[in-house]
Amino acid sequence: MARSRLTPERESELYAAVLDLLREVGYDALTMDAVAARTHSSKATLYRQWGSKPELVARALRHNKPVTLAEIDTGSLRGDFRALMELTDDCQMEKDTALMRGLAHAVHDNPDLHQALRELLVEPEIKGLDEVLRRAVRRGEIDPDNPALGLVPHMLIGAFVARPLIDERPVDHAFLSSYVDAVVLPSLGV
Amino acid sequence: MARSRLTPERESELYAAVLDLLREVGYDALTMDAVAARTHSSKATLYRQWGSKPELVARALRHNKPVTLAEIDTGSLRGDFRALMELTDDCQMEKDTALMRGLAHAVHDNPDLHQALRELLVEPEIKGLDEVLRRAVRRGEIDPDNPALGLVPHMLIGAFVARPLIDERPVDHAFLSSYVDAVVLPSLGV
Repeated sequence: MARSRLTPERESELYAAVLDLLREVGYDALTMDAVAARTHSSKATLYRQWGSKPELVARALRHNKPVTLAEIDTGSLRGDFRALMELTDDCQMEKDTALMRGLAHAVHDNPDLHQALRELLVEPEIKGLDEVLRRAVRRGEIDPDNPALGLVPHMLIGAFVARPLIDERPVDHAFLSSYVDAVVLPSLGV
Repeated sequence: MARSRLTPERESELYAAVLDLLREVGYDALTMDAVAARTHSSKATLYRQWGSKPELVARALRHNKPVTLAEIDTGSLRGDFRALMELTDDCQMEKDTALMRGLAHAVHDNPDLHQALRELLVEPEIKGLDEVLRRAVRRGEIDPDNPALGLVPHMLIGAFVARPLIDERPVDHAFLSSYVDAVVLPSLGV
């Protein structure tokens, strides 16, 4: 797709408007008409650039993550996790979690959204996390045969899903950091 | 509530019918009328016995769990987890997971269902798990100050949520057992 027709600034503006709308009305009620009106662009432009609503939403969420996991490289696994958490403040984390919870709900009824989120958000994050872990293995911090190596995404998703469910509190730095120290690093033998 | 008016057999029959209907039509489309018709009982009886649809559904799910966690006591934590998994076969586990996934979706729109599931299902399970862990602490298997002690439900929920999401496969014994061995027990120092 000819994404180059938009300036990066304009693209950022559009993505921000999509995320605002998502928070305001949710995925199902979000229409390409509403995005067009909010951003003073034409629906034709939106469809030409992004093809579909699920792809536009997935790209807006992807754009919201300023740094990919694989770029974090502090020299230790504990430092990498700490740097990863410092990318987002507690308020932003709470907003993002609410957004993702709403989307998890929408995914149930929209297989095309599921597919777009998987390709543009979940898979790149898992690959990035893999790269962070592979570097820790190369540094000798993790045994290459440690069976927890493939289960780190499962552990982290558990923290995000279970915190509101069990403790009825939002995920924040203090919780994530204690979870990484108590569960993730010990299971990896770090 | 005068639950004693029904024989245990009749109560079991009713709960089984509720779970069948839940699987067939989902929570939102499940009506007290449909339960009454399916079980040849009157709606008045259902409301008298259970008060509301969320409570009936939560009690049916609770009834579906034949043994409470706290009753499992094999003498070792590894043995307790193994016994816990052996309560459910893979086919049943897949059916239960599908059911819970549908309910997690319904919970989003029904705060009263959320409340009933929390009181009748989530809290008793967490208390049961706590009891299993407390016994392991008393036996000296787990350090009483281990910071992972309060995070076991989060780890386990992660396994159930992330397995279909990341690996696109249902949770089964082989996966759960490797997750317990690679993540849960090492984080507890067992």
